Amino acid sequence: MAKTSPLAPKGGFPDLPVISGVTFAAVEAGVKYRGRSDVMLAHLCAGTSVAGVFTKSATRAAPVLDCQAKLGSASDGGAAIVVNSGNANAFTGGKGIEAVTAVTKMVAETLDVPQDRVFSSSTGVIGEPLPFERITAKVAELAEGLSPARIQDAAAAIMTTDTFEKGAAAQVTTDTGVINIAGIAKGSGMIAPDMATMLVYIFTDAKIAQPLLQDMLSSLTDKTFNCITVDSDTSTSDTLLLCATGKSAEVTTLTGPFTDALHSVMRNLAHQVVKDGEGATKFVEVCVTGADTDADAHKVGMSIANSPLVKTAIAGEDPNWGRVVMAVGKSGAKADRDLLSIRFGDVVVADKGWVSPDYDEASAAKHMKGDELLIAVDLGIGTGKSTVWTCDLTHAYIEINADYRS
Amino acid sequence: MAKTSPLAPKGGFPDLPVISGVTFAAVEAGVKYRGRSDVMLAHLCAGTSVAGVFTKSATRAAPVLDCQAKLGSASDGGAAIVVNSGNANAFTGGKGIEAVTAVTKMVAETLDVPQDRVFSSSTGVIGEPLPFERITAKVAELAEGLSPARIQDAAAAIMTTDTFEKGAAAQVTTDTGVINIAGIAKGSGMIAPDMATMLVYIFTDAKIAQPLLQDMLSSLTDKTFNCITVDSDTSTSDTLLLCATGKSAEVTTLTGPFTDALHSVMRNLAHQVVKDGEGATKFVEVCVTGADTDADAHKVGMSIANSPLVKTAIAGEDPNWGRVVMAVGKSGAKADRDLLSIRFGDVVVADKGWVSPDYDEASAAKHMKGDELLIAVDLGIGTGKSTVWTCDLTHAYIEINADYRS
Repeated sequence: MAKTSPLAPKGGFPDLPVISGVTFAAVEAGVKYRGRSDVMLAHLCAGTSVAGVFTKSATRAAPVLDCQAKLGSASDGGAAIVVNSGNANAFTGGKGIEAVTAVTKMVAETLDVPQDRVFSSSTGVIGEPLPFERITAKVAELAEGLSPARIQDAAAAIMTTDTFEKGAAAQVTTDTGVINIAGIAKGSGMIAPDMATMLVYIFTDAKIAQPLLQDMLSSLTDKTFNCITVDSDTSTSDTLLLCATGKSAEVTTLTGPFTDALHSVMRNLAHQVVKDGEGATKFVEVCVTGADTDADAHKVGMSIANSPLVKTAIAGEDPNWGRVVMAVGKSGAKADRDLLSIRFGDVVVADKGWVSPDYDEASAAKHMKGDELLIAVDLGIGTGKSTVWTCDLTHAYIEINADYRS
Repeated sequence: MAKTSPLAPKGGFPDLPVISGVTFAAVEAGVKYRGRSDVMLAHLCAGTSVAGVFTKSATRAAPVLDCQAKLGSASDGGAAIVVNSGNANAFTGGKGIEAVTAVTKMVAETLDVPQDRVFSSSTGVIGEPLPFERITAKVAELAEGLSPARIQDAAAAIMTTDTFEKGAAAQVTTDTGVINIAGIAKGSGMIAPDMATMLVYIFTDAKIAQPLLQDMLSSLTDKTFNCITVDSDTSTSDTLLLCATGKSAEVTTLTGPFTDALHSVMRNLAHQVVKDGEGATKFVEVCVTGADTDADAHKVGMSIANSPLVKTAIAGEDPNWGRVVMAVGKSGAKADRDLLSIRFGDVVVADKGWVSPDYDEASAAKHMKGDELLIAVDLGIGTGKSTVWTCDLTHAYIEINADYRS
């Protein structure tokens, strides 16, 4: 396995709370990898609400289409999530849905939950049929291994080129009880707006009706997972599921402490995905203000965050703000060259269209040597703003991707 | 200087015909580089029509804005083009237009042409004031060196990270005389649709009214320079000027042998720009057919051509068609996974949504070892089609761009 990203959280995988109503298991099924777990199972109690957001790719994979169809299910009697790594079961023709059906049926029968409440994801190579018998053969073993404490094992089983397991948690104290939230995610290439090769599963013991849960998830995704990019490529398999088991206090409003806590968990996981971007050595926050609209600010942010020239300059620790200007210019957003201001960290490099009189390249260069960078751009036009996150583009990205498949 | 691109034309710089009515010169002005020429001058006779297309960047450089303003000029008495490399005179505030004015004024006075017929371009680093005195000090020497035969010297003077001079020519025999066309170009990073860090100057001795010349240039640009991409980044300085001196036969129609010849010159130069893409080792033609519309086909083509995952797979000589599927899916164009077919060269890899029964990975891998590759995608939906050209994404791209400025 590749060396752990230098941007990985220093403390390792966090201590996630047990979420009442959900148990986890993981197993080595040998889908593709050897010597590591590659299938995870989560079992959710009766009464669980499930919300989801998915890739917008026009060529999305069979498990994604199956999950989307099942979200509207009125069945109860529990639910389950089964995920494999190593093979994305994408672009596999009619065999795609056959594999999904076989796996979800086996899980449904084994756990005694309705099949239309068994959600599945697959991540890995595209275009090769999923050897689903290797997964179905392990479902009984998975079911036996289910435990409330095995969420880190689940996080490990879904990794592909990820270099560390990603987890985050939050706790909210309400008048009617303490609510816990715990989530896991995988990255780490093909990460772009509108989701990525991202699989994210978040669990809470709150009681939340499905429509409200879906509203929360959709609106928070726009501020978190849809604001990160590694390489502008978008996966055919992106899936984010949010499950509320209903074992603790009820939440009935779209905004409030619970939503804030969920937001923090989602932002934390989104940041971890970027920090494990293929070949990443720098985590970059791009803050855009003063745009005509928030949408324009987002366009500018993504244009900067996706620019190979900006990203290679960051890899080279070069405060090359000219490339930031270039990226603003090509974004399609309303911009006026002579109103533009740019900061690297606290260092004002350009002000109202030209190099700041106080600009000190040594200070900017010093900021670039850090591993968490800020590029702040003010367009000077309006009040639109947006923040997005990305990483640098390095030799390791090329190494990982020039022969990932072979 | 960097090693010449392995994709450079085998015969070296072509033997370009003399274009009656235009002379060229180049000089070492020391704008930034040392030991090489960095300013070119072209002097055009009275009666010359000039057409242009420019970057669509919202932060375009002062020389671009100046050229755009001058295109509509009704003056005659000749024209001139002056271009420097090493400094883009972009994002230089009020100093930008001061430098342009100083340089074009000096050229106008020296050559005795109206200042509003002196077009200038600058390419190189963004955000540093252009030391224009170094250029104005050399204008007299440039004027003395003007010669009809020095077009290759001009091509050399405008290079930045280019590894070879780019030239192309064509000849058209008409009832009223032989028309010559000769063009030069520079690349080679920041190359994307809607122009790039591209400077292109094309000269013909045909007599063509300015409005017709502009129509030809605009429509052919959409099929040539707007169909290439190296890294999806768009320059603030892109300029393409087409000059017709009127010394030979007249052209009065938008379509016909002259337009075909001009198209071939523009396509040839566009391909050379891609072949000198930073770090390029493979030239890739992406042919998209069967799309709902031509515009959709272009979207799909550009999505494939700009995908870092596709481009790194090409660098690794890996026929990773799954990434092509991904790029189709994220393009935003109408697509149906189960109608999609993909070829690498002559090798059908996927047919109607899944691996072709005849697919032979060894044959596909063999195609990938060549240095000119074809990726053909048929969407199976309609009759829309588009062809775009790109190169692979290699370690050398990162090397060149992680410390270009330092």
